[in-house]
Amino acid sequence: MKIGVLGTGNVGNTIAAKLIQLGHEVKMGARTAGNSKALAFMSAHGPLASEGSFAEAAAFGEIVFNCTKGEHSIEALKLAGEETLQDKILVDVTNPLDSSAGMPATLLISNTNSLGEEIQRTFPRTKVVKTLNTMWCGLMVNPRMMPESHTVFVCGNDEEAKLKVGKLLQEFGWYPDEIFDLGDITNSRGTESYLPLWLRMYMKTKSGAFNIKIVKAES
Amino acid sequence: MKIGVLGTGNVGNTIAAKLIQLGHEVKMGARTAGNSKALAFMSAHGPLASEGSFAEAAAFGEIVFNCTKGEHSIEALKLAGEETLQDKILVDVTNPLDSSAGMPATLLISNTNSLGEEIQRTFPRTKVVKTLNTMWCGLMVNPRMMPESHTVFVCGNDEEAKLKVGKLLQEFGWYPDEIFDLGDITNSRGTESYLPLWLRMYMKTKSGAFNIKIVKAES
Repeated sequence: MKIGVLGTGNVGNTIAAKLIQLGHEVKMGARTAGNSKALAFMSAHGPLASEGSFAEAAAFGEIVFNCTKGEHSIEALKLAGEETLQDKILVDVTNPLDSSAGMPATLLISNTNSLGEEIQRTFPRTKVVKTLNTMWCGLMVNPRMMPESHTVFVCGNDEEAKLKVGKLLQEFGWYPDEIFDLGDITNSRGTESYLPLWLRMYMKTKSGAFNIKIVKAES
Repeated sequence: MKIGVLGTGNVGNTIAAKLIQLGHEVKMGARTAGNSKALAFMSAHGPLASEGSFAEAAAFGEIVFNCTKGEHSIEALKLAGEETLQDKILVDVTNPLDSSAGMPATLLISNTNSLGEEIQRTFPRTKVVKTLNTMWCGLMVNPRMMPESHTVFVCGNDEEAKLKVGKLLQEFGWYPDEIFDLGDITNSRGTESYLPLWLRMYMKTKSGAFNIKIVKAES
């Protein structure tokens, strides 16, 4: 599949590298084409990897991953272009974190709104699927590093889009029963709201290689 | 031990009943002595159970549980009295939920503050320990209904108070390695912030009998 990855940071690199390992063609997008990190990504990953502007990466992908920093996501997606993103699946893995005052970061949007919803509202013709934002990026693409099952949340307004993203998650190694579909995109409020707890656990465990598993009583 | 339980709702009743089952003496407190729910609790649970005003229940307990509704907690604790609560351990199991607009509820305090901190700030000489607020009350006092281990968070500024509350959690059935001490009371922001996700999982699973387990990669 042709996939656009917006963002050149750790998350973008981790997801883009995994997609290429799985045999997908990936164009990494940055504010401008020729970004040094995107060029480094391209030279490290061979013929399936390419790079360009946000708009070029968005145009390239059948599915587009938003791996920009949450605080800049709306702006970056506007640079990608509303027309370009129209009818596409946008996998939003971001969190609206403000770490300007140090750790633990606070949320720039919270409680009665979320970044996932804000993106869906700003790009109404794009199929936004929020997922993977509740964990360290190394775990997003390598869930089987864990000794037992654990949980990844998915939400979004388009059922077909969620199924397609669910298949990609399974390519990453997630088991179907580990994928928890919370419902429509307003559920981003739930998963983004978990970040303040995640950050505090991270500061205590001093490793990102942890996640939550939903345990239910036997009925 | 003599324990005060402030609040006559499901949470207060569940915790008070468990404490009596464990052999503790419990005084359930309400806005005024002679509350009908508190009287019903007393008559259902025999000689270890008594009831009174918030102030009487707080004076009675070596440890006091705050099981009032989050939106009324500060007011209820003021009725209990700052002098009365002085130097006591206050186990705060509440969440500042606003369900006036229906489910899922939103948070009245969030992100850069929390109810746990607000209580500690309002009653600086009380040893506030935040715990158990991340799950259904049936699970708080019966963690072994679950088929495997799961997690309860604890936070607060007083180490000795956290150890004592940890012992009480173990009396409830929690295993020591299930108790995750996040640190000081500011970590209430983390556990209260998880509620929007909990509420959405609850709406999907249609049962409160679930919890999260922290899973870590093998090192």
